[in-house]
Amino acid sequence: MDTANFAQPPLRRRGRPTKGSSAPSQTRAAVVRAGVALLTEHGVTATGIDQVLNAAGIPKGSFYHYFGSKENFLKEVVLAYGDYFSRKLARHFENADAPPLARIEAFVADAAAGMARYEFRRGCLAGNLGQEVAALSDDLRRAIVATFEGWEAQLADCLHQAVARGDIAADADVAELASAFWTGWEGAVLRAKLQRDGNFLFRHARQFIAALPRNLAPPAA
Amino acid sequence: MDTANFAQPPLRRRGRPTKGSSAPSQTRAAVVRAGVALLTEHGVTATGIDQVLNAAGIPKGSFYHYFGSKENFLKEVVLAYGDYFSRKLARHFENADAPPLARIEAFVADAAAGMARYEFRRGCLAGNLGQEVAALSDDLRRAIVATFEGWEAQLADCLHQAVARGDIAADADVAELASAFWTGWEGAVLRAKLQRDGNFLFRHARQFIAALPRNLAPPAA
Repeated sequence: MDTANFAQPPLRRRGRPTKGSSAPSQTRAAVVRAGVALLTEHGVTATGIDQVLNAAGIPKGSFYHYFGSKENFLKEVVLAYGDYFSRKLARHFENADAPPLARIEAFVADAAAGMARYEFRRGCLAGNLGQEVAALSDDLRRAIVATFEGWEAQLADCLHQAVARGDIAADADVAELASAFWTGWEGAVLRAKLQRDGNFLFRHARQFIAALPRNLAPPAA
Repeated sequence: MDTANFAQPPLRRRGRPTKGSSAPSQTRAAVVRAGVALLTEHGVTATGIDQVLNAAGIPKGSFYHYFGSKENFLKEVVLAYGDYFSRKLARHFENADAPPLARIEAFVADAAAGMARYEFRRGCLAGNLGQEVAALSDDLRRAIVATFEGWEAQLADCLHQAVARGDIAADADVAELASAFWTGWEGAVLRAKLQRDGNFLFRHARQFIAALPRNLAPPAA
């Protein structure tokens, strides 16, 4: 899962914020964006607060003023990433111009292009943090789980539309399928990152769609 | 993927090695075992050399004597984990007492029990390091990819036996299926760890087996 649109501004901007962009809420948002970009690439353990502030071009002293604690900051980063990704999903999964299963394929192509754009350095922030769960509080762990559950609900809506059109069997367990998609997706993102190869994403989607329960073809007349 | 049998001795032993177990090769092996255990739980970024030596009960000065560099040490850890896991796979996948697909289920049950035994703190060392690939050398990256490829070959052998028995369609792309199994597996391990729930592993296996291409049933007489 790339952070393309989301992360571009903070990483391109160097040094102090320019005049006019330094209102507190913008500063805060810039730090969160830098956190999303860095944690999507390196995970939480390898990312220091200094690095985040540096990438956002914010003076060191302001971190605790804005966030109170690293824990609060991480929670905001998880929420921001979840929101960003959820908007990406909505753009694809709610696209009424394409049939539901083609929307899933379009999302996967978008995600693969995003990973390629960052030379497969960036994976999925939720996956990175999930892998590092030993270093996280229970609260943060629950926030990551809730993020996955949100994505599952969005995909389930899309799959329900496929059921309504008769593209998937009416008795398909849509919630279970949606959950399985994201579980496998995390593995595919990991392998794509490790092997710098977006085909892991495409293959996951292809196999997911091929394995969906279908309505039996009507008997030949 | 648990490190159960592999990791038990070093983590249980505290302090200096007991007399008689301190031969150089044993010391070296103890450090590698401690590395496997710690990296399976925390990943490479969160694990310091001091922690590893501490867990192994080895004095600090000896690390570079044994391994030369952290890079060499990590390579040995990856190889040791790969070997350990490969032996676990061989035990299940080559078990002639069970049909091939049941062997896959038995492996999954074993892995799930291993994760539960460590309260889902330990995942898969190859997956942890794969997620942290930004922090790794290209050499190490290739060692992790080779580890996955080894597991794929072992699973492919098992699936070939299923084809030979007629349990899977003769034209099944066994190599592709084996690769897909491990890709999804990494996602399932991540979610099992995050949500402390082995059902992610069982579900992955169930869906993998259900989606295998089957021979068409012979037409009813």
